[in-house]
Amino acid sequence: GFAKLDTHRKIRSGFAEVIFCSGKSDAHLLDIFGRLYESDGEVFGTRATPSQYEIIREKYPQTQYDSLSRIIKIEKPDKKRIGKIAVCTAGTADIPVAEEAAQTAEYFGSYVERIYDVGVCGIHRLLSRIETIQTANCIVAVAGMEGALASVMAGLVDKPIIGVPTSVGYGASMNGLSALLTMINSCANGISVVNIDNGYGAGYVSTQINRLVAGK
Amino acid sequence: GFAKLDTHRKIRSGFAEVIFCSGKSDAHLLDIFGRLYESDGEVFGTRATPSQYEIIREKYPQTQYDSLSRIIKIEKPDKKRIGKIAVCTAGTADIPVAEEAAQTAEYFGSYVERIYDVGVCGIHRLLSRIETIQTANCIVAVAGMEGALASVMAGLVDKPIIGVPTSVGYGASMNGLSALLTMINSCANGISVVNIDNGYGAGYVSTQINRLVAGK
Amino acid sequence: GFAKLDTHRKIRSGFAEVIFCSGKSDAHLLDIFGRLYESDGEVFGTRATPSQYEIIREKYPQTQYDSLSRIIKIEKPDKKRIGKIAVCTAGTADIPVAEEAAQTAEYFGSYVERIYDVGVCGIHRLLSRIETIQTANCIVAVAGMEGALASVMAGLVDKPIIGVPTSVGYGASMNGLSALLTMINSCANGISVVNIDNGYGAGYVSTQINRLVAGK
Amino acid sequence: GFAKLDTHRKIRSGFAEVIFCSGKSDAHLLDIFGRLYESDGEVFGTRATPSQYEIIREKYPQTQYDSLSRIIKIEKPDKKRIGKIAVCTAGTADIPVAEEAAQTAEYFGSYVERIYDVGVCGIHRLLSRIETIQTANCIVAVAGMEGALASVMAGLVDKPIIGVPTSVGYGASMNGLSALLTMINSCANGISVVNIDNGYGAGYVSTQINRLVAGK
Amino acid sequence: GFAKLDTHRKIRSGFAEVIFCSGKSDAHLLDIFGRLYESDGEVFGTRATPSQYEIIREKYPQTQYDSLSRIIKIEKPDKKRIGKIAVCTAGTADIPVAEEAAQTAEYFGSYVERIYDVGVCGIHRLLSRIETIQTANCIVAVAGMEGALASVMAGLVDKPIIGVPTSVGYGASMNGLSALLTMINSCANGISVVNIDNGYGAGYVSTQINRLVAGK
Amino acid sequence: GFAKLDTHRKIRSGFAEVIFCSGKSDAHLLDIFGRLYESDGEVFGTRATPSQYEIIREKYPQTQYDSLSRIIKIEKPDKKRIGKIAVCTAGTADIPVAEEAAQTAEYFGSYVERIYDVGVCGIHRLLSRIETIQTANCIVAVAGMEGALASVMAGLVDKPIIGVPTSVGYGASMNGLSALLTMINSCANGISVVNIDNGYGAGYVSTQINRLVAGK
Amino acid sequence: GFAKLDTHRKIRSGFAEVIFCSGKSDAHLLDIFGRLYESDGEVFGTRATPSQYEIIREKYPQTQYDSLSRIIKIEKPDKKRIGKIAVCTAGTADIPVAEEAAQTAEYFGSYVERIYDVGVCGIHRLLSRIETIQTANCIVAVAGMEGALASVMAGLVDKPIIGVPTSVGYGASMNGLSALLTMINSCANGISVVNIDNGYGAGYVSTQINRLVAGK
Amino acid sequence: GFAKLDTHRKIRSGFAEVIFCSGKSDAHLLDIFGRLYESDGEVFGTRATPSQYEIIREKYPQTQYDSLSRIIKIEKPDKKRIGKIAVCTAGTADIPVAEEAAQTAEYFGSYVERIYDVGVCGIHRLLSRIETIQTANCIVAVAGMEGALASVMAGLVDKPIIGVPTSVGYGASMNGLSALLTMINSCANGISVVNIDNGYGAGYVSTQINRLVAGK
Ligand SMILES: Nc1ncnc2c1ncn2[C@@H]1O[C@H](COP(=O)(O)O)[C@@H](O)[C@H]1O
Ligand SMILES: Nc1ncnc2c1ncn2[C@@H]1O[C@H](COP(=O)(O)O)[C@@H](O)[C@H]1O
Ligand SMILES: Nc1ncnc2c1ncn2[C@@H]1O[C@H](COP(=O)(O)O)[C@@H](O)[C@H]1O
Ligand SMILES: Nc1ncnc2c1ncn2[C@@H]1O[C@H](COP(=O)(O)O)[C@@H](O)[C@H]1O
Ligand SMILES: [Mg+2]
Ligand SMILES: [Mg+2]
Ligand SMILES: [Mg+2]
Ligand SMILES: [Mg+2]
Ligand SMILES: [Mg+2]
Ligand SMILES: [Mg+2]
Ligand SMILES: [Mg+2]
Ligand SMILES: [Mg+2]
Repeated sequence: GFAKLDTHRKIRSGFAEVIFCSGKSDAHLLDIFGRLYESDGEVFGTRATPSQYEIIREKYPQTQYDSLSRIIKIEKPDKKRIGKIAVCTAGTADIPVAEEAAQTAEYFGSYVERIYDVGVCGIHRLLSRIETIQTANCIVAVAGMEGALASVMAGLVDKPIIGVPTSVGYGASMNGLSALLTMINSCANGISVVNIDNGYGAGYVSTQINRLVAGK
Repeated sequence: GFAKLDTHRKIRSGFAEVIFCSGKSDAHLLDIFGRLYESDGEVFGTRATPSQYEIIREKYPQTQYDSLSRIIKIEKPDKKRIGKIAVCTAGTADIPVAEEAAQTAEYFGSYVERIYDVGVCGIHRLLSRIETIQTANCIVAVAGMEGALASVMAGLVDKPIIGVPTSVGYGASMNGLSALLTMINSCANGISVVNIDNGYGAGYVSTQINRLVAGK
Repeated sequence: GFAKLDTHRKIRSGFAEVIFCSGKSDAHLLDIFGRLYESDGEVFGTRATPSQYEIIREKYPQTQYDSLSRIIKIEKPDKKRIGKIAVCTAGTADIPVAEEAAQTAEYFGSYVERIYDVGVCGIHRLLSRIETIQTANCIVAVAGMEGALASVMAGLVDKPIIGVPTSVGYGASMNGLSALLTMINSCANGISVVNIDNGYGAGYVSTQINRLVAGK
Repeated sequence: GFAKLDTHRKIRSGFAEVIFCSGKSDAHLLDIFGRLYESDGEVFGTRATPSQYEIIREKYPQTQYDSLSRIIKIEKPDKKRIGKIAVCTAGTADIPVAEEAAQTAEYFGSYVERIYDVGVCGIHRLLSRIETIQTANCIVAVAGMEGALASVMAGLVDKPIIGVPTSVGYGASMNGLSALLTMINSCANGISVVNIDNGYGAGYVSTQINRLVAGK
Repeated sequence: GFAKLDTHRKIRSGFAEVIFCSGKSDAHLLDIFGRLYESDGEVFGTRATPSQYEIIREKYPQTQYDSLSRIIKIEKPDKKRIGKIAVCTAGTADIPVAEEAAQTAEYFGSYVERIYDVGVCGIHRLLSRIETIQTANCIVAVAGMEGALASVMAGLVDKPIIGVPTSVGYGASMNGLSALLTMINSCANGISVVNIDNGYGAGYVSTQINRLVAGK
Repeated sequence: GFAKLDTHRKIRSGFAEVIFCSGKSDAHLLDIFGRLYESDGEVFGTRATPSQYEIIREKYPQTQYDSLSRIIKIEKPDKKRIGKIAVCTAGTADIPVAEEAAQTAEYFGSYVERIYDVGVCGIHRLLSRIETIQTANCIVAVAGMEGALASVMAGLVDKPIIGVPTSVGYGASMNGLSALLTMINSCANGISVVNIDNGYGAGYVSTQINRLVAGK
Repeated sequence: GFAKLDTHRKIRSGFAEVIFCSGKSDAHLLDIFGRLYESDGEVFGTRATPSQYEIIREKYPQTQYDSLSRIIKIEKPDKKRIGKIAVCTAGTADIPVAEEAAQTAEYFGSYVERIYDVGVCGIHRLLSRIETIQTANCIVAVAGMEGALASVMAGLVDKPIIGVPTSVGYGASMNGLSALLTMINSCANGISVVNIDNGYGAGYVSTQINRLVAGK
Repeated sequence: GFAKLDTHRKIRSGFAEVIFCSGKSDAHLLDIFGRLYESDGEVFGTRATPSQYEIIREKYPQTQYDSLSRIIKIEKPDKKRIGKIAVCTAGTADIPVAEEAAQTAEYFGSYVERIYDVGVCGIHRLLSRIETIQTANCIVAVAGMEGALASVMAGLVDKPIIGVPTSVGYGASMNGLSALLTMINSCANGISVVNIDNGYGAGYVSTQINRLVAGK
């Protein structure tokens, strides 16, 4: 076939291959979705459009789709969720990216705590939730515009923070580049950064860390 | 002469012309320094080098030079300082720019409170000084690297904040561009921004505001 | 709820929370709009689309919408407007951003004078209005393309100028970045800058200053 | 004093404050170095110049300086090193940044394995060391120019990778920006990124992860 | 006519003129298509839309259109294909650009081997196909996101590699700029690069090289 | 020789070849200088260093050097200067670039009027000289920082304006890029732009225009 | 009214005000169009959409619209066209911008010669038309992609060249920025540049020059 | 040792490892230089400084150093040079980069023809040498500033052109980025591009092609 599915990946990395649905033709997507479902008994795709969901659901009616995170999946029932990851956002507009992170982490077996809309322009909101955050094994900080959330949190916790800049903003936010630069340049310690809007990547890395602590 | 000194400026804007010493030849600088001193009985220059100071001091031994802020001046004695401006920095490396702002504001008659090294990666330092900051008429927030200080402060005070991004940092800080973008994109309200390392501009604007409140 | 409304903000900063409507789902927007209206008896949103207006109006028929500024609001009657802010534009295409600034300032209780289409390529238009501008407590200068308006005005007045670069232009204007750089680099004194197209921010800062002078 | 030393930091975050020596005046540096040494019995600084070392050594002759990593320190003897971090470089020119990472991690109690000069243009070099790398708790991938090392490694291991772009290169490498973009955009999973040349940051984050696994 | 067709080009360069269909009006395109077909007995266009195909097919029903590569053509039957070019992609999303390269090379008389979805995040896929690649006269490496494929391949073969960055990706991929920088900065030898998504250019250059080896 | 002197140029374009001294080795420069002097009886070089002048003067003692404009030349006596070009600057720091423009224009036979330090932050200075400017055949506007001078002048005259952005400024001026963008985006009509600090180019183009009007 | 029409402009600059139609509301556009037509007996607008044309034509049926250049106008009959301007393009895709330039110049009374599709990748096309070009008073060089046309022409003529970079291209052409940089950096003399796609600006400047030579 | 010398490389790729001297410590450089010389009987380094040469010459007195290209080498006598590569430059300032390309190609066994100072602003110089260029197997086009040389040549030959942008220029040339963009966006066919100032890379690729044609 046109695509070389990476069926060894689960063995090599502990994570099954995930489908990046964006830009895939319907035929290709359906083919890959089916092959991965066959091989693993479950399957997970990111950045799916509603119309891609329609096409997949026709053949696999048990498919679930979340229009906020744009995640499409068939998931085995009763999977255990271990450890704890805190997924935080600066504003409400960052929630779709945060959900991509949270649901990715959950699919891969992490327990996730959501703490949304605690941006730095009202610091008391963050301070009032800080204990919950401090007890996580890893923190995902999702923020657009100036993206200062990661810096402030890094000064308050002793766990690794994965910064996810988002494209929320306008003008000089340059579609998330400004938030990316903020996070990369943070004067605070303990922050590393993934691509703009890459909730998936943050869910993946935070799960790697969470698994290391809580055991596979 | 080569330079058209703007002797009307003090009448038009309430501020005498200031010398931007950087890049001026010794002869030009000495000439301008002298003419302004003659006309006003005092004179103020920014970005002066130690060697420019040597040349001016020879002719005007009463000249004062501060090697931190790089400000050179002859100032009338016993000038009154009104109102209150808070000049804050994120780190110790931002102090030279902050001093340019503070001393500019003082020269133009403002009372200045300095609150240095209160960056967001140790938020308790800022919180412990917040009352002093809240009683100022205007706040100058000086920060490099990711420049998040202005955002956090804007959520805690009800006065205008002048953000001064600095070129402190390395790598993706791009000589202050990252901090500039952070401040311009702030999700917090009440922030406006001047050029990278432009302590002078912040001292000027904050004095305009301080004068409006405390009276000329 | 998903959103942590900042109900303390009015006490902390003197300004109630404002809704940034852009990108919010209908359900979220309606919920936030209602909660803020309940708590304050009035409510103010920026960047609202006509279809968002439709949804809100159904539930709150007293809602007002201005399609130029894209501001949506329910405002208490007979609010006093104090002091004076001058809102100026370079061209006619900059008017929507200027209106966002002006109406924000008015909502927060400032008296606003509008002086539009006085760009530097016909300087006599600006000079003929200069007295009106000089008597304001604060000036908002809105300009796209090369954004030179702020610089010229700063040489003619003694009050703080808030520069608002706009995305008006094409080619190398890079969606307002060029105008932003022009304003940030101004050789004139007394200018500070907000984000591209951020009329709201300029209306907020100018009101902070205007209140300081004219009393809350 | 001018600087607000963050003496609570060790309690809050588990890491003592570290001195960023670059740009600090001799007097300031000596003062901070001394205060931290007094409070903790050991002290650690990055980006120190040879002449800064001279000044510190005069007062604290037991100080150690490594001219490659530019790290200056007084370290308590017989500290235990736990777990395992693999620090890898693409070329020999990346070694100074890698050493900053490795020695930071060691100072904070991590056991470090160095695997240098295994860049992707000779992939057999990396493959021959892959088992050592796979048994680490966390991997630091240091690379300049096109920075592809992190991507290739992420496909071969199941542990989190901290990418450190370096300013090694010329022309379109734009002082490390190109390598930063490569790492941020990686199609491989499990990579998060710190600032250009920020070995310190990578040493810090990797130690956070290593501690979580191997126990504090 | 408005267009100066370069009918000498085939003599001068050995390649007939190719139509860049994007942005051409229907009338212009039809006119150019017809004139080139008349002059050469065959014709080749890139970046054609389905609706451009409709218009051309009406007049020239023998026209072929491939919606993946967006190539439109009338080709003489039984053309010989000499030598060997390997066209490789990192992911499945890069296939449209790769097909533009492959079909351009085939039209100009090269034999092409397609090796798709062998990106560096699963290096075993590439290694398993390396012998086929090593026997080509020239290799085209098509990759988006971080674009590391070209670097890894350059370390494994002794033939020139033409790198084609693609606009596949999001966020900091900046529409292919990141992949372009990666390839231009490669530490590996033997790579030269064409424009983002320029499959046509890569097909052309690789055919020039292939012809030199295999004889015209 | 290594260099192919363009001795036909004067016939083809009406302007003799000019030496761009920057970066040339002493031997090369001396050789080219001599060959052009031989062929034309005069010679003109830009961007010469004082030490390059020393070397040339030894062999050609009649050589003149201006350390402000960095122009080196041997010029025929009693050359006529026709028409009129106005060379204007925003500040005193822009004078070196302006002198490069003015002296180039003079060398090629134009009469030049210098109007310096008339930047837009004190618009009365420009207005007081406007009649002189309006009677020129072409205007050269030299400005750094925000570069607004060209826009304001274009609204006041009916002759072509050549904008020369300069690298004067700091921070977000990005070495002249900001001024270049300002001039390229001007809302005023009649402006075209040359490279940052390219006084030579402006002197050349303005002479082309001046000659067209005043006759060769 | 909202707009301050610059009715003095024709006297001040010799050119009547032109309408930039892009982004204007129908009501505003109609109002301005009418006022200018009333005042001058003719009117000229750029960047008009077909639907703007519909609205204007309803009230002013004599209005002419050219969908290629997007120019809308009512023009007095039998206007004289003096001198000569050569408008050249590199490719056929640059023709819309060239037509904006040519028709602007014609409206303002210049005689225009069109020389299209003579880009540098087939230099013989340009060389065969060079005599026509050399006899113009001013040359407009319109080119996208790499924009080399202006440089080559500047080496072949002795008249000023106005470079117009266009947004034609893809990938690293960055919507015309690459062509703009090429033209601004030209090693050839006699080129000055206007904004990307700014045919109007080039038509205006070239007419200023043409008028100076051929008399108003 | 610290460095993993790639002794298999000559077998794998047909090219021995080359030393990139820039930034290497003296001890490291000497060690690598010696090991490669031992293994191959000859050795080749790029970007060497005069002082690096001093250190190597002390131990290996037969070492040759060319201060123009900054190449350092010990070369076996009487090596055969096959085929033909044409190395061309736009100006004299591009010669150092061209020499790096030419001498690299010669070291690896190619016959090289040098054609310097034939830039597009005097196109007759290029046309007069075109036959020599057309008979090469591969052409290297070295140009800074606007970098148009590659485009013009690609229209005149039927062999692959390797474009080498150089950092020659100032202002908006942005240290070679502008020339890089020009070459990457060329409308002409048959150009592929290497990094700014990367003469070595161009010498390498052109030799790969030349060898394919002329036989190893
Ligand atoms: N939202 C996402 N962002 C980045 N990478 C993703 C995302 N979703 C899936 N992926 C990765 O992309 C790979 C699929 O790429 P492809 O072969 O082009 O389908 C998967 O194996 C995942 O590792
Ligand atoms: N190489 C480094 N890169 C980034 N941050 C550092 C580095 N070294 C030390 N730091 C951090 O910078 C802080 C000192 O900042 P300051 O007090 O502003 O000079 C320390 O507390 C560390 O957290
Ligand atoms: N996809 C493509 N990318 C870049 N250049 C192309 C492409 N397709 C065709 N070309 C070139 O563009 C030229 C046509 O340009 P134009 O005169 O604007 O039609 C052709 O002669 C080809 O050399
Ligand atoms: N296509 C164009 N590009 C740039 N400027 C234009 C263009 N068309 C008209 N203009 C100028 O823009 C001005 C109108 O701007 P406004 O006041 O916003 O309508 C006119 O007076 C012209 O000088
Ligand atoms: Mg909120
Ligand atoms: Mg500190
Ligand atoms: Mg107007
Ligand atoms: Mg190596
Ligand atoms: Mg795949
Ligand atoms: Mg001045
Ligand atoms: Mg064509
Ligand atoms: Mg030359």
